Amino acid sequence: MSVLVVGSIALDTVKTPVEEHADLLGGSASYAAVGASFSCPVNMVGVVGDDFPEAHIDYFRQREIDLAGLQRVPGKTFRWSGEYMWDLNTRETRSVELNVFEHFTPTLPESYRATPYVLLANIGPNLQNHVLDQMERARFVIADTMDLWINIARDELLRLLGRVDLLILNDSEARQLTSETSLVRAGARIRAMGPRYVVIKKGEHGALLFGDDRFFSCGAYPLEDIHDPTGAGDTFAGGLAGYLAAQDTAEVSWEQLRRAVVQGSVLASFNVEAFSLERLRTLTTADIHERYEMFRLMSQFEVL
Amino acid sequence: MSVLVVGSIALDTVKTPVEEHADLLGGSASYAAVGASFSCPVNMVGVVGDDFPEAHIDYFRQREIDLAGLQRVPGKTFRWSGEYMWDLNTRETRSVELNVFEHFTPTLPESYRATPYVLLANIGPNLQNHVLDQMERARFVIADTMDLWINIARDELLRLLGRVDLLILNDSEARQLTSETSLVRAGARIRAMGPRYVVIKKGEHGALLFGDDRFFSCGAYPLEDIHDPTGAGDTFAGGLAGYLAAQDTAEVSWEQLRRAVVQGSVLASFNVEAFSLERLRTLTTADIHERYEMFRLMSQFEVL
Repeated sequence: MSVLVVGSIALDTVKTPVEEHADLLGGSASYAAVGASFSCPVNMVGVVGDDFPEAHIDYFRQREIDLAGLQRVPGKTFRWSGEYMWDLNTRETRSVELNVFEHFTPTLPESYRATPYVLLANIGPNLQNHVLDQMERARFVIADTMDLWINIARDELLRLLGRVDLLILNDSEARQLTSETSLVRAGARIRAMGPRYVVIKKGEHGALLFGDDRFFSCGAYPLEDIHDPTGAGDTFAGGLAGYLAAQDTAEVSWEQLRRAVVQGSVLASFNVEAFSLERLRTLTTADIHERYEMFRLMSQFEVL
Repeated sequence: MSVLVVGSIALDTVKTPVEEHADLLGGSASYAAVGASFSCPVNMVGVVGDDFPEAHIDYFRQREIDLAGLQRVPGKTFRWSGEYMWDLNTRETRSVELNVFEHFTPTLPESYRATPYVLLANIGPNLQNHVLDQMERARFVIADTMDLWINIARDELLRLLGRVDLLILNDSEARQLTSETSLVRAGARIRAMGPRYVVIKKGEHGALLFGDDRFFSCGAYPLEDIHDPTGAGDTFAGGLAGYLAAQDTAEVSWEQLRRAVVQGSVLASFNVEAFSLERLRTLTTADIHERYEMFRLMSQFEVL
């Protein structure tokens, strides 16, 4: 089964303490769509300007991502620039140019409207709601969000929460949204706002999945070399959504969700090994399976 | 089998954003010895002043902790005062009074010298080395340390590392000791300094265990109510050491170490639910087993 992915498509400039690269393929939809494409067909929705390199379009096509929903309009592509501090955990945004993204309205091609799985990657909740308005019979809807929208579009975000099955956000955002310091309480509070499931991402420390009276704690794969954390959360969301779509069961089960969280973590762990989506370009299904199994072995322990 | 625990015994004043309490039972040996006492007999080594409340001594006795190695000397007990910020993750030390601890030399009673398991809880590495000098045939030696000793007693600490089987330290300390930002590299570097095993604690994010070409990632038990993080690391170390001592096998296995890390995490998760050692006072073996099993369930997932 397919997953519909909507989000931003960007050209990024990223600086770490070691390197700086400009005009990299980026944006939440790029990472999420490619992350999902390792498991299932993807219907992508987004916008780029006339400066967007054809090579990136070719790469999406090569990943068998349907681009019927990709708008190419006159003007410059959305640009983001950020800098990471020495530990690669703290990031400062240096500049944001919305460009063609400023007037973007995601319009779904007819062929996308019945896509059963939906990933609303990180964009404004008004656009996320607008996508859902056009969907028919979506089976499982996942939304990602960020601190900016909690700050400036809280009401729109709360409206969205009533319409999604799973919300993904990071730990500081969960605390910000709920005013709870405990992540367990924050997870429960967010579930009470609408989504049956919540994933709280903890960056290099993994992720927590909350469901009906239970949770799953997924560690992060410990890496020797992290080169660029950009897009880790988006790749995680894409990997998770792709895994669920590939299962194609009438109901998403708790066991599937746990494996989906691990699949997302595995893809994110590869993605941070290089700038932009470079590591994903050479990634194979065998690599994913091998790391998933190492993940499983490193996480398991026996009864007392 | 017994475990020998040496470390500090303190009277703490702890302030959180919500509460402040003075003259609490604290110190690395107190938390570690009580943590271990849930699994095995403990031989405690430490020093207190003549102001140390008899009630605390009674509590140690009640936990069946051998106090032959506890020195009671004229003067005031070691005192520590600290304050936690709003998220309970950042701590500032407000004051330290060494008092009787300043001239403390841990001297082992004859009856302690052949204790097979040794936990050198957090005290100066010179004292930790001095304890090892007095031991005969220790089967498995665990040491905890902290940033202070890495800063001011590095050579003594490095000498210690050649004599221990397992070093426990937190993530920032591991980075400080090795100048590596990656915890995987830091773990490998520390193993090259001597200890066959290394545990890197990540506070509310769990712990990583490193062994020969493998590691184990243990999440932290997600808690709704954290009241006082003081002593979490010491309780973790005590729970871990106690579990290993209780197994009493000729060789400590990787599987035992994994379970020991979880046992330590379970005890630490209880300890932070109340100030000082209050939660441990009412804790039962059934509570520990129940949470261990919840821990196991929340950490497991199936093959892909």
